[in-house]
Amino acid sequence: MHIEITEVSPRDGLQNEPQPVATEIKVELAKRMIAAGARRFEITSFVSPRAVPRMADAAEVIAQLDAGPDITLQALVPNLRGAERAAQTAVQEWVCFMSATESHSQANSNCSVDEAVARFEPVLALAKAEGKRAVAALAASFGCPFEGVTPVGQTVQVAKKLHALGFSELKLGDTIGTATPSQITQMVHALRAEVPDLDLILHLHDTRGLSLANVLTGINLGITRYESSVGGIGGCPFAPGATGNVSTEDLVHFLHAEGYETGFDLDACIDTGHWLSKALGRPLPARLLKAPPIGTTIPLDGITRAVG
Amino acid sequence: MHIEITEVSPRDGLQNEPQPVATEIKVELAKRMIAAGARRFEITSFVSPRAVPRMADAAEVIAQLDAGPDITLQALVPNLRGAERAAQTAVQEWVCFMSATESHSQANSNCSVDEAVARFEPVLALAKAEGKRAVAALAASFGCPFEGVTPVGQTVQVAKKLHALGFSELKLGDTIGTATPSQITQMVHALRAEVPDLDLILHLHDTRGLSLANVLTGINLGITRYESSVGGIGGCPFAPGATGNVSTEDLVHFLHAEGYETGFDLDACIDTGHWLSKALGRPLPARLLKAPPIGTTIPLDGITRAVG
Repeated sequence: MHIEITEVSPRDGLQNEPQPVATEIKVELAKRMIAAGARRFEITSFVSPRAVPRMADAAEVIAQLDAGPDITLQALVPNLRGAERAAQTAVQEWVCFMSATESHSQANSNCSVDEAVARFEPVLALAKAEGKRAVAALAASFGCPFEGVTPVGQTVQVAKKLHALGFSELKLGDTIGTATPSQITQMVHALRAEVPDLDLILHLHDTRGLSLANVLTGINLGITRYESSVGGIGGCPFAPGATGNVSTEDLVHFLHAEGYETGFDLDACIDTGHWLSKALGRPLPARLLKAPPIGTTIPLDGITRAVG
Repeated sequence: MHIEITEVSPRDGLQNEPQPVATEIKVELAKRMIAAGARRFEITSFVSPRAVPRMADAAEVIAQLDAGPDITLQALVPNLRGAERAAQTAVQEWVCFMSATESHSQANSNCSVDEAVARFEPVLALAKAEGKRAVAALAASFGCPFEGVTPVGQTVQVAKKLHALGFSELKLGDTIGTATPSQITQMVHALRAEVPDLDLILHLHDTRGLSLANVLTGINLGITRYESSVGGIGGCPFAPGATGNVSTEDLVHFLHAEGYETGFDLDACIDTGHWLSKALGRPLPARLLKAPPIGTTIPLDGITRAVG
């Protein structure tokens, strides 16, 4: 079975780095991940350059990358202004992101949940006119740093509004890494009951060590689309102690070990993780940057007896 | 549903610390975990004090702890000599540990797999005479640092021999953290088919981020007994890049979030993890030592808008 992985390191991964990251690093990161097998990227964000100065190079990253038609580039588009900027670039998919909770919506998008939904009506119209694909993304789908656990019904209500507006794909963001297998199961069942033709993508963080348990749950539910970031970089600015997205290395390693096909080359992902760690000047949380893949062996010769 | 957790930090956790740990720290660690709800410990190891000098205080730890009858203490017993020393103490359960692979058996126990099984015949006889419980433990049940993935049939064969010798409980050790959900599923099905009345305990490491996915798999298979170490300390000396056991904080947090009962107080586990981190002078890998439990909230007031 093929599992689709969207590489989100250039956007979600690098957005919250302590120091701004040079455009060249963003471009090289994407190029290395293309060589490692990535075919779909969340590459940048067309937010206001005044609000998020480090995403001011959005158009430049896309131009320099010059990815070609077999690579699908997604960019975050918060409103019509962002969509108009995105329309001037080679980005094929616009990620219309908002929050499932009022507090996170106020903190992250400076508007209410309903206002956020309303903002996307003209964006969808422009996407249609420009021949672009629009994908909805819902932050705090499972938990909110200000409100606690997000009720399933609340996320489902927002998903219904987005679907009614015209979206056919929804990224469920476990922004602060609080989703659990049972919550994912309930959420997916509820969404399939209420909005059966909405295609679901799981965007998971490993903050509490649950990301691969949640991927396992998703796969058992038939979900074949996931997001990850090489090195495990990224994280919500409002999530205390948050670690990053589930790492591409760990996700690919797990999926391959379980017999799934991803199109990624694990060794090349690990090499890119090491390169990125060096470029950012810090160790990154991906496990496969420390431990070798399952099945790796060391020679027995010369081993000192441990216990005797 | 109740899930039993054996706290292994005093033995498996501390055995491979870079620096030897004072007896008083081992005893205080156990006392703090008793206060946090632990009722069964892997407390120490009666290996040869010459081979493993840092376990020379085995009897002293048990005497100082003076745990009382409602706490079950386990100690590792590699052979009859170890069992004779254990018999002089208040330890109620003897853990007869060996390896599922020849190479790991040579490296860890300096004997073949069959020799290791044979060593336990007199140990079982002594346990019976002394009124002690004997539990088998099989390192490298899922993977071996020298041989790669352990075939399911190989672990099953050793389990059959241990069962035939008289053991009714088996700890399956994922010594180097390579077990996957599908491998655990195959292993448990095969063991239940071949040795149906052998009670299984899962001893998992989080080396590749899979420990909680494996716990989830175990629970779905009806396995209710697990081992963990507070802080996530521990690890096999032959496992390159190995991180420790699944941490008690992360395991208890996950189980409580999913509605299982453990008898542990999560906050007290986390406090003990912080105390242990300070005592060992280094950060420990448990996620709940960095991230707050699911449902924790922060005030929205004063948050700077992130995206706008």
